[in-house]
Amino acid sequence: LRAEHDTTFLVTAISDRVAGSLLDADGLDLEQALAGRAAGERWGGHDAAGVIGACAADVLCEATPTDVRTGEPAAGHCRAALHRGMHVVTTNKGPPALHHAELAALASEHGRSFLFEGAVMSGTPLLSTLRAGLSGTRLQSISGILNGTTNHLLTAQEAGRTFDDALGEAQRLGIAESDPSADVAGLDAAAKLTILANVVMGMNLTPADVERRPVSDVTTADIEAARAGGKRWRHLAELRDGRASVLPRLLDASHPLAGVHGAVKAVTVGTAHLGDVTIVGPGAGRVETAFAVLADLLEIHRAYG
Amino acid sequence: LRAEHDTTFLVTAISDRVAGSLLDADGLDLEQALAGRAAGERWGGHDAAGVIGACAADVLCEATPTDVRTGEPAAGHCRAALHRGMHVVTTNKGPPALHHAELAALASEHGRSFLFEGAVMSGTPLLSTLRAGLSGTRLQSISGILNGTTNHLLTAQEAGRTFDDALGEAQRLGIAESDPSADVAGLDAAAKLTILANVVMGMNLTPADVERRPVSDVTTADIEAARAGGKRWRHLAELRDGRASVLPRLLDASHPLAGVHGAVKAVTVGTAHLGDVTIVGPGAGRVETAFAVLADLLEIHRAYG
Repeated sequence: LRAEHDTTFLVTAISDRVAGSLLDADGLDLEQALAGRAAGERWGGHDAAGVIGACAADVLCEATPTDVRTGEPAAGHCRAALHRGMHVVTTNKGPPALHHAELAALASEHGRSFLFEGAVMSGTPLLSTLRAGLSGTRLQSISGILNGTTNHLLTAQEAGRTFDDALGEAQRLGIAESDPSADVAGLDAAAKLTILANVVMGMNLTPADVERRPVSDVTTADIEAARAGGKRWRHLAELRDGRASVLPRLLDASHPLAGVHGAVKAVTVGTAHLGDVTIVGPGAGRVETAFAVLADLLEIHRAYG
Repeated sequence: LRAEHDTTFLVTAISDRVAGSLLDADGLDLEQALAGRAAGERWGGHDAAGVIGACAADVLCEATPTDVRTGEPAAGHCRAALHRGMHVVTTNKGPPALHHAELAALASEHGRSFLFEGAVMSGTPLLSTLRAGLSGTRLQSISGILNGTTNHLLTAQEAGRTFDDALGEAQRLGIAESDPSADVAGLDAAAKLTILANVVMGMNLTPADVERRPVSDVTTADIEAARAGGKRWRHLAELRDGRASVLPRLLDASHPLAGVHGAVKAVTVGTAHLGDVTIVGPGAGRVETAFAVLADLLEIHRAYG
């Protein structure tokens, strides 16, 4: 970071759901903190809200688990940090999916950034590309494979597995959750699509506004018939003509999203001046999501020095 | 531009190879200039070098045709503008492929930008994404389909056409040039790969350092055999382990670049923290290339206000 970006980041506070919190305005020793956490240390101290109130950081990095119905506690954390004049970086889908207008306005009021690259496709540079390289053109549509579980299920069925067999395998591999219903029903993809709708297309949706049909509507016979006709089923999240949907769709094998296999994610944006631009990359993973936080921190560094 | 980017651009000079030049420090009437050009007006005045010396612009937008052997006259234009303290935006492959180190140093010395999004994949935001969203990770490899003609030829052969038949069609469609040898031999892709090597991977190559084999080495029988085995031939430009090449390569059908058809272009970058990230988009076209100039101008606006 010093050599290539002429900067470094000092971590002045950590709040962990289990271990408690650490604060040091001169900077914490990260290796020591991680080793302590791994050894089961209990730090006690403030809860997350207390840490945000007590520390003097420039940026809050928020990485609590997503509650897609309320956006809490993440939204409260973001709000509190912005009020205290911090930039906010979050990997949590809740705040941008449910409270984007409010939080973006709050950030703008305080002259700060509210960034969340990790909320959609983890560290794959989708939001930053839409904000930078594609900012000069109008986006007319967005189609994406935004959920790794459902794409893994379809890909495995194309290879001849049954739905139940593929789901069991995905659960064993840690791709699908033990309760896969939110993924299968398209709820997770709907939250990510809502973020794209509100942030990139200037809409004002909630996940409940997204029309949905579950990936399990596609039968083995449907998949067989598609293959025979040179086509593929994909569980596609789409924004088009002001409507948002997550539906099983039949794509030509030559469609850029038809070639996206397994847990990889991809988004195609239809633009006024370039036609279609597609970005394909990893959509999950611990390192990949941590990288999204770093990418947002570097963007803040570039913008504010 | 005013509403969304809080800026506007004033064109104070135009130099056209055929019509001559126009200069007005208060800003030219673009509609009038374009109508005049279309009606065959001859403006006379300075040549391009003279215009760069005579005008007081903040940015030179350079869009002369590429000479991939010398980089001229574009490199001279870029050099002169940077010396006069202008930012430079070019769509010409020559200056970044042959003179990147010199021109980037000159820009840095004057506190100005040297940008060339349009030189690789026209306006598809490849270079800006590598510079911004992916700047926090090390790039370990680059593989790309960087030439639309050769990819069109392979795609058409996969559909059962002969090489000569496909080439004739590509020439009629304006995809292939009347002398397609530089495309077929991989020279055009080698120039683009050199740009990526020097700019993104910090190498110091010239197009002559790129190992090449022509796309015409792939026979109809090869393409048939690949299809029978679930694979596809692509004319792949690659940077890997310090070596640069443009070679016909056999890819699994599930490879992100195998699904890239016709004149669309695509680049996969292998990264240290995200695995593979692929960007697919248009690689040529008048509007698409003009959009690259706009994207670079907006980046300069964001960086310098």
